[in-house]
Amino acid sequence: MTDWRKLAPKDIERRSMEIIESELGEVPFEGIERIVLKRVIHTTADLGYAETLFFSPDAAQKGIEALIGGADIVTDTNMAKSGINKAALAKLGCRVHCFMADERVAEKAAKLGVTRASVSMEAAAEIDKPLIIAVGNAPTALLRLAELIGEKKIEPKLIIAAPVGFVNVVESKRIIEGCGVPVICARGRKGGSTVAAAICNALAYEAVKLKD
Amino acid sequence: MTDWRKLAPKDIERRSMEIIESELGEVPFEGIERIVLKRVIHTTADLGYAETLFFSPDAAQKGIEALIGGADIVTDTNMAKSGINKAALAKLGCRVHCFMADERVAEKAAKLGVTRASVSMEAAAEIDKPLIIAVGNAPTALLRLAELIGEKKIEPKLIIAAPVGFVNVVESKRIIEGCGVPVICARGRKGGSTVAAAICNALAYEAVKLKD
Repeated sequence: MTDWRKLAPKDIERRSMEIIESELGEVPFEGIERIVLKRVIHTTADLGYAETLFFSPDAAQKGIEALIGGADIVTDTNMAKSGINKAALAKLGCRVHCFMADERVAEKAAKLGVTRASVSMEAAAEIDKPLIIAVGNAPTALLRLAELIGEKKIEPKLIIAAPVGFVNVVESKRIIEGCGVPVICARGRKGGSTVAAAICNALAYEAVKLKD
Repeated sequence: MTDWRKLAPKDIERRSMEIIESELGEVPFEGIERIVLKRVIHTTADLGYAETLFFSPDAAQKGIEALIGGADIVTDTNMAKSGINKAALAKLGCRVHCFMADERVAEKAAKLGVTRASVSMEAAAEIDKPLIIAVGNAPTALLRLAELIGEKKIEPKLIIAAPVGFVNVVESKRIIEGCGVPVICARGRKGGSTVAAAICNALAYEAVKLKD
């Protein structure tokens, strides 16, 4: 083991990325897509994301452009909100929202007998700004979002589709990929708040570099 | 796909757990250990944790007893803090701390050229209460914690060892398992804030049931 006191915090990330690059092998990702993939693997230690991460054409680039243009991020979990780098977003004039703890959202969800995550997408649709929607937990958020896009009530600049789990997760990702909106999707059952946050952060760091 | 509007939120978790149980196969976990494992898989959609999750003798039971006794949880990431169920902790009279954004911790870490996570364990050692330490990100937190335990400056009731990554992660988990303190460890490279939070929540939910 490397003596941890001799390894500065910035060196740990650099060395991690070197290990990831050396183990990644042949993957069809270059440029910003490769940067996003590597940050997801850095966050999860799961090289399997090289097989499951999907980018619609220019989705990562469109996400960066949206952030440079001051888009806000809406996520379906407070964990993802907590994990998104606020200092990077502040440099871009962007903010991150999560409506899961919003009382009106909770009340409406209880009344309808649906998830708060699905209702939180209706709250997102009321924001009059360019948006990136980052879903790290609930497939129902993606399913409601797909409906709202179909009804032209929202048109995100980018959807980050990374819910995790066993019920309707794989299906929700297929549906959102068919919505005609730029999407970065962690296909399959895996994903999560840390994955959604890692993708947002990878895009935000590149946006900050380009804006500087 | 099941019509998502017809699936109440509570049914989604129940059905997820049924799927996990049906796919789990033969694993050497029963009782509370099986409950903890299933919640980790529920959070990650990664059945591989059945191979990597390790419990020192009675560690889960000791964690539940600590929570019933009002132990506080200290975690190394604000994401894990965000993901731990505060309503369950409140019923137990427990709180969760994270010192990563603490200014004194940041200053000391910068001065020493070490991670804030390692210094945050020194802040934990100053808390005069029974503690559960839940590490979901930084191996340096575990490595410093092992030193502090050796110096008898802290003696947690339970360590949840789930840092994630490529540098010193596997080694830090081996070292913490040798400290003589009860430990629940996600061996190998994988883990993360969501895993640490899931383990805390599984224990807290059982503690609430027992306390009621």
